[in-house]
Amino acid sequence: MTDIRLIEAAELRLAGHARRTPLLNAPLLDRFAGRRVFIKAECLQWTGSFKFRGAWSALTALPPETRARGVIAYSSGNHAQGVAWAAHLHGVPAVIVMPADAPAVKVANTRAYGAEVVLYDRTTEDRDALGARLSADRGLTLIKPFDDVQVIAGQGTVGLEIAEQAAAAGITAADVLTCCGGGGLTAGIALALAARAPALRVRPAEPAGFDDTARSLASGQHERNATLSGSICDAIVTPTPGQITLPILLRHCGPGLVVTDDQALMAVALAFTHLRIVLEPGGAVALAAALFCKDLPDTVICTASGGNVDPHVFATALSRFSDLH
Amino acid sequence: MTDIRLIEAAELRLAGHARRTPLLNAPLLDRFAGRRVFIKAECLQWTGSFKFRGAWSALTALPPETRARGVIAYSSGNHAQGVAWAAHLHGVPAVIVMPADAPAVKVANTRAYGAEVVLYDRTTEDRDALGARLSADRGLTLIKPFDDVQVIAGQGTVGLEIAEQAAAAGITAADVLTCCGGGGLTAGIALALAARAPALRVRPAEPAGFDDTARSLASGQHERNATLSGSICDAIVTPTPGQITLPILLRHCGPGLVVTDDQALMAVALAFTHLRIVLEPGGAVALAAALFCKDLPDTVICTASGGNVDPHVFATALSRFSDLH
Repeated sequence: MTDIRLIEAAELRLAGHARRTPLLNAPLLDRFAGRRVFIKAECLQWTGSFKFRGAWSALTALPPETRARGVIAYSSGNHAQGVAWAAHLHGVPAVIVMPADAPAVKVANTRAYGAEVVLYDRTTEDRDALGARLSADRGLTLIKPFDDVQVIAGQGTVGLEIAEQAAAAGITAADVLTCCGGGGLTAGIALALAARAPALRVRPAEPAGFDDTARSLASGQHERNATLSGSICDAIVTPTPGQITLPILLRHCGPGLVVTDDQALMAVALAFTHLRIVLEPGGAVALAAALFCKDLPDTVICTASGGNVDPHVFATALSRFSDLH
Repeated sequence: MTDIRLIEAAELRLAGHARRTPLLNAPLLDRFAGRRVFIKAECLQWTGSFKFRGAWSALTALPPETRARGVIAYSSGNHAQGVAWAAHLHGVPAVIVMPADAPAVKVANTRAYGAEVVLYDRTTEDRDALGARLSADRGLTLIKPFDDVQVIAGQGTVGLEIAEQAAAAGITAADVLTCCGGGGLTAGIALALAARAPALRVRPAEPAGFDDTARSLASGQHERNATLSGSICDAIVTPTPGQITLPILLRHCGPGLVVTDDQALMAVALAFTHLRIVLEPGGAVALAAALFCKDLPDTVICTASGGNVDPHVFATALSRFSDLH
């Protein structure tokens, strides 16, 4: 079980390597929201998302001889880039297994961060079998995207920073909204805040139709999404919460929040206008919840978890919603 | 004459009020540039640009009874918003004089920050006469955009932060590129670095055709731009360097750098992709110079001075240049 000591240990390993991202706010955004809204800008983290923290934490927790053989991950998104860059900085091989139809820019970026990309055909090849063969042949260690205690511990360092930055901003109580996929970031922050700032309550935010975590929190058991595609918030769509993450969320989180794709795009546009940061839709769902959900307290802190957005999607958000103020 | 003591005094007055903006960098941006590029992200400052610093510095330098009567500024841009918000936080009136044909969003934003906007007709009214009458009638103090020692001192706090952040990043020598209009930011940073980090040399960057500062640095006297319109980098187009700023620049700056409008837009697109920050073209000219100019050292620090960009201009930068990597 991940606890605060593992997060504190991860914090030491990340010191000087992960970026301490700012807690931003803006008067005109508060005015729009009708409450105080603070944004933990993890889009400014290395590789553009919080995923670098978990990757670095997991890599540095490996025995040196194991790490030296290299790591492997299955991802075409932010986890891929985080693992690739963390491995590059350690000078160890990273193999990222991606579907052959992944966007070319994601393949290119992952390679640019120094990883070897292995493509597979989704229709004819078994990703897990391919990964297992590569791991066995080359002694690679699998870095899971969320269901790994050291990954959760790394993401939990976001929570340690939120606790400190909230105290410095004079915030004594707030809801802390997270962009929630498998729950690694949410679990890490929840553990950190339970130990350091218990008046800050974590609530996961998800896209409508992909609210497995909100439903799992309500029922107390693993609920699944009916489908895995069709949301613009693709970065945070997962089938069901993790085996390790859900028990943590059940213990520490308030009820989940759900936003529409359009609300996520509005949050992207408002972050552009008022915060001058670039968010991907999946990285904007917590901000969307802060802006559009009911039954929130006067002060809300949101993670802005990632900013690796397709330029066409971003331009769409601007063309549809940049007249919001 | 502004010197380091005035900047240090401004720093004390700004402490806890201006945001300490991060010094960002990104491996894939370095790769594109062929050098190490660090970005002082003043687009994340209150009101979206460094102008808040100078406004706060000038307001807090006024005698309380003078400040209480209020301030006035001529601007439709970043200076207007910085003065408006700084005055609002002090609970004193701010009057911003803008041309009646200023973009509606700029008028709306300035009002949203709490200022009274007075519109005038550029073709029939004399702005300075109007402002002088308002000032006399209401006892308002004019806050100039750059040619004011306390404004320069406030902008100089960017330089103090760069000196500290560069040292923390292990940067021992670099060119520091500034987005340069009238020279307030450039002069402030130059004074701060001359005192605190003399191995960091300031060089102003300007749009092609509006390179009055570069030419003034070369000739040693005030040179003027032939026109005042036609650049997409409108935020930093001024007729000629300031009376106070130019002598400071002549004493401390290296040669000026010039970039095209397209290079500024490319910098906007690359900052979107690799840094996940929103820049306006005028706030991206220093980054553009870092990416595209010759004869620069291995390490360059750029100010990203503002992020209040028209969404259509931003979308244009993305549609034309987001395939750059």
